[in-house]
Parts: sequence; structure tokens; C-alpha cells
Amino acid sequence: MAGGGFGNEFELIARYFAPLSKDVPGALGLKDDAAIVDLPPGERLVAAADAMVAGIHFLADDPASDIAAKIVRVNLSDLAAMGARPLGLLLTAVFPRDLDAAWLDGFASGLKADVEAFNAPLIGGDTVSGDGPLTLSLTALGAVPSDKVLTRAGAQPGDGIYVSGTIGDGALGLESAGGGLAFLQASDRDYLVERYRRPRPRLALGARLLGIAHAAIDVSDGLIADLGHICECSNTGARIDAGAVPLSPAARAAVDADASLLRAVLTGGDDYELLFTVPVGGDETLDAVSRELGISITRIGEVTKTDGVEAAGAEGLGDLHEETGYRHFG
Amino acid sequence: MAGGGFGNEFELIARYFAPLSKDVPGALGLKDDAAIVDLPPGERLVAAADAMVAGIHFLADDPASDIAAKIVRVNLSDLAAMGARPLGLLLTAVFPRDLDAAWLDGFASGLKADVEAFNAPLIGGDTVSGDGPLTLSLTALGAVPSDKVLTRAGAQPGDGIYVSGTIGDGALGLESAGGGLAFLQASDRDYLVERYRRPRPRLALGARLLGIAHAAIDVSDGLIADLGHICECSNTGARIDAGAVPLSPAARAAVDADASLLRAVLTGGDDYELLFTVPVGGDETLDAVSRELGISITRIGEVTKTDGVEAAGAEGLGDLHEETGYRHFG
Repeated sequence: MAGGGFGNEFELIARYFAPLSKDVPGALGLKDDAAIVDLPPGERLVAAADAMVAGIHFLADDPASDIAAKIVRVNLSDLAAMGARPLGLLLTAVFPRDLDAAWLDGFASGLKADVEAFNAPLIGGDTVSGDGPLTLSLTALGAVPSDKVLTRAGAQPGDGIYVSGTIGDGALGLESAGGGLAFLQASDRDYLVERYRRPRPRLALGARLLGIAHAAIDVSDGLIADLGHICECSNTGARIDAGAVPLSPAARAAVDADASLLRAVLTGGDDYELLFTVPVGGDETLDAVSRELGISITRIGEVTKTDGVEAAGAEGLGDLHEETGYRHFG
Repeated sequence: MAGGGFGNEFELIARYFAPLSKDVPGALGLKDDAAIVDLPPGERLVAAADAMVAGIHFLADDPASDIAAKIVRVNLSDLAAMGARPLGLLLTAVFPRDLDAAWLDGFASGLKADVEAFNAPLIGGDTVSGDGPLTLSLTALGAVPSDKVLTRAGAQPGDGIYVSGTIGDGALGLESAGGGLAFLQASDRDYLVERYRRPRPRLALGARLLGIAHAAIDVSDGLIADLGHICECSNTGARIDAGAVPLSPAARAAVDADASLLRAVLTGGDDYELLFTVPVGGDETLDAVSRELGISITRIGEVTKTDGVEAAGAEGLGDLHEETGYRHFG
């Protein structure tokens, strides 16, 4: 791990980050140029990298521990979508020069909690002090059995389309964090903000879907857009029932009060739930998985042969595809 | 790979970055959440991550292709120091909003050239448009035989200390790029600037040093500081002869004209040469490696039992340790 700025870079790493390597020998105490990772026989490496910038992916005044949690969880969610279990994390951080020790304490404590919770040691990275906004980049390394593959490709016409948990909390949470949705009860707004700030990577579910699901993705760009990604990579279409999309009580309250918010639910992203397709006859298996893991799984539609993603029950909401960045469908 | 901004994020990735995945199947066309990497039996994974920010690690008006080369090569140099061969790269980039297509073309062409030259396909990452300075973070994945380890730890008292190539060109190149060293011939300044902008990761040498060297590091923080890192991790000291440190003709001309520049040579960093220790009796082997690879290797000192890094012949240059960030030595 390399470091720069913040008084003494090596002291910074030793104080805040080295404890997060969890004594994994290959992390070399974060003192070397690189980490060494052994991959168990019969497993393949899965690697995901995402960057987050203050003011774009989180709010600069979000709690430091939540910012740490988000960069970790967003990347672990990418591993979850491929059914991988975490091996380790490499974090590069550009810290604004005016960050103080209390902020760093909070950031490191957020990292530590997730390193423990997800058994994902910090094995390397780099810290820099800069003049720009707080910018974080994390690479999550994971492992998946060599004989099992779960990607965005592989959906087949006739597959059921399923999501874990509830959809739309991320987008409505962002809105709430910015002072919106003032008509909701404070407890509902707090719930949504918490969902936006601290997504829950569905690692256990992703691993259980190996051999069950044909295709999977995590809902980061938005339900419609991410379903479009599956369709593009699988050369299929999809039809969902907007009314079947599972909502949390807080999101339900928001949509009941303002039906146009269903658009944000379907297109807003930042949910980090899994969206996946399973061939006909899989409902009983999925019921068992749902009970085993204590995670709700809801059927929201079906993979089709036609082009594009159609959403029944969303007719009054305008073109759901225009912010998706995915222009070939819809 | 995920993307954001720049018109359509997916078009950006498809146009500029997907071609750099070199059709590696596990890169999944940069369309998935993560890449899949198979590690050959008997090899361990090595992972290094470094971030670079415009104005700190490179100059914002450096050629775009050189900026791309630098972020790749700095990370490959970390792999080289551990004797690893590259498997793939994950790049996250925060691009300023005012970057234009010509700049991106240059950046992508610089990436492409290095992806080819070092056989290091781009397998994943993320792009974001932001308001801050251009910020790049790269994770380099590599492989090293499981039964061979080369790290900063392992130096033994009595080992010879060696460097590849020439030292000081990086620091003097940065000085030249900023308009300094005007007393040098233009061709010398150009040489030094090129060395600063386009370091040469010593991958072949690193791999050959497996089983030969006790410890290795790449010279990024500065010769004295990086030797300090080896000593810290190895619980040794070191004594070098400043006069033995190999200089390029351009650096020699600079130091001949202004002897105080030897300080920049010894402490300036950014050389990305390998600094390594080899037990007594290794000179003949190193001569053969040097001839085989066409890379000069120079003995500059010896590992000692005492604490600290001493540099004979640098007495008039002040405390060489004060900018090293490594305070326990010297």
C-alpha cells in the first residue's frame, strides 16, 4: 500500500488502515507494493472496481462511516451478482486536505465494521491528499467455483424475472437525504436514507443462485436499465409488471401519496438488490432459498423473445428508458 | 465495467475501453459487473493499486497518452517488484467534464499501446465525470509462482544492494517538465522528461530475480526512502555509496553542473527502477541476467545489521531522510 499527504503517509496507513488487513499474511501489513492472494483450487477470481466521488455518488456531509460502507458495499454487490465470495479489498482514496482526524476515525471505523461483517480484509491500496472532492476507488476481489458461472448473459425466453428485497428505496432515499419527500413520516424518510447510504450486498443470495439462476445483475443503474443490461447481454427482451415490483412500507407510502414517484422506483437505481432470471419450475427452489436466507424474493415478470424491456402498469410515467443510458431497447 | 457521464456511458466504454480487453473472455466485453480471471495452477495472485491525480502525480497538460502510460506503468512496476507477470488491469477514472474526444482518443491510444506492450488486458473498471481534477486509479492483477516469494522483507545483513537502470531521471525529469534545469541541453531535458512521463516497469527483471534476490522494491518514493522500506520490513540497515548510484548521461550532466542536485537523485523518486538485495556471491548471476535482458544492474551498497540507511558521499546534501516519510531511520 502506498500513501501520500496527511502528515506522514506511512503513519496514516499504519494507524488507520493496517488494522483492517485482519492479519491476512498476503496483505503484508499493507507495507509492500502489492498483496499476495491464494486462490483455492477449483475457484476462479472475480474482480470488480467502482469509483465514487463526493457530490455524485454520496453527499459530502454524509457520515464518514456511511461513505466507507457505501464504497465497500457497492463493490461487494458486484461480486454478489456473480455469485462470488469476497477475498479482499484494495482501496485508493483521494482525501481533501481539510479532512480531520475525527473524520478519518469515522471512515476507518466504517471500513472496519464492513471488513468484519463481510469477511473482506483490506489487502492494499493507496492514499493521496488532493484539492478536489473526496474520491474513492475500490477493487473487490472474490472467488467463485470454476464450474459455475453467473453473469448478465444467459437469460432465456420464458425465464421468470425476480428481485430480492425491495426496489426504489435507494432513489427515494437520495431524494429524502436532499430534503425531499417532506410529506412522509420522519421514520419513513430515515429508513429510505439509511437504505441509500448503507446498501446491503446480497452475497449469500448470489452464492446460492449459482446453478439456479440463468443470469443476474445488481440493481445499481435502475431496475429498468439493469434489466436492459441483462437483455442486451443475453439477446432477449423482458416484460415486467410494475405493480408486482416489491416496495418497502416507506416506498409504498411515498408512491401512494404521489403516484409519479413510481418512475423513480423503476429507474432510479442505487438499490443493490439482485435482479435475476430463473427457468420455469424454479419457484419452489426460490421459496426455499428465500426462507433459508431470510430474504424476500419476488417474481416481477418474464424474459421474452422480443426486443426491449416493457413495463405493464407504468404507462402514465413517460419513457422509462430515457435516463437509462441504454438506448437500444424500449 | 460501469460508466457515467460523457454523453452515453455505455457508448464511451464500448468505443474507448472495450477494445482494450483484448478479447479476453473473462473481461466479458467490459459489460458485466466484474471480470473473471483464471489463475493457472501453482500460481498466486498479486494485486497492486495506485491512484494518480492531475497536478500531483502528473501535469494536467501532459499528453493524454503519457498520462495513460504512467498510471499503467506505475502499477505494473509494483508487480515487477514482486516478480509477477501481469494478468489484467481494472481502471477507474474520474474525467473532468471539459475533456474532449481528442483527449480521450489520446488517452485510449496510450492505454492500448501499453495493454499490448505488457500483455495486460483491461478487464474492468468504472468511468465517472466529475468537477475535480482528472483522477485515475488502477488495480493491476498479476501472477507469481506459488513457491517463490519476492517482497520488501527478506534482506539479510551482508547482501549486496543493487539497482536496475539509472536513478534520478524521474525527479530531474519532473524538474525539467516544470521549466527547471534550463542550463541543460534541450536533448537532455527531453530525455529526462520522457523518463518521468513514461517509466519502464522492469517486469522481465523482476521475474528473473525470483529465487535470486532476497528482497526487492521499485523506486517510487525515492532511492533512500525505498531502501528504508526494505530495511524496515527486513529489520536491517543499509549503507550505500552515493557515488556508485548509476546516472544517465543527462542526469550526470545535471549533477556535474550543480552538485546539490544529487539530493534530488537520491531522494526524488519516480524512477520505477528495481532496488533489490542479493546474497554474497550473486554478482556472476546478475551479470548474466543483465546481459540476457539488456538491462544494466549496478551494485550500490550493502545491507547492514545496524539501524538506518547511510549514504557515503552525500555528506554535504543535508538530511536525506526528511522528505522520505520514513522517520525511524537515518
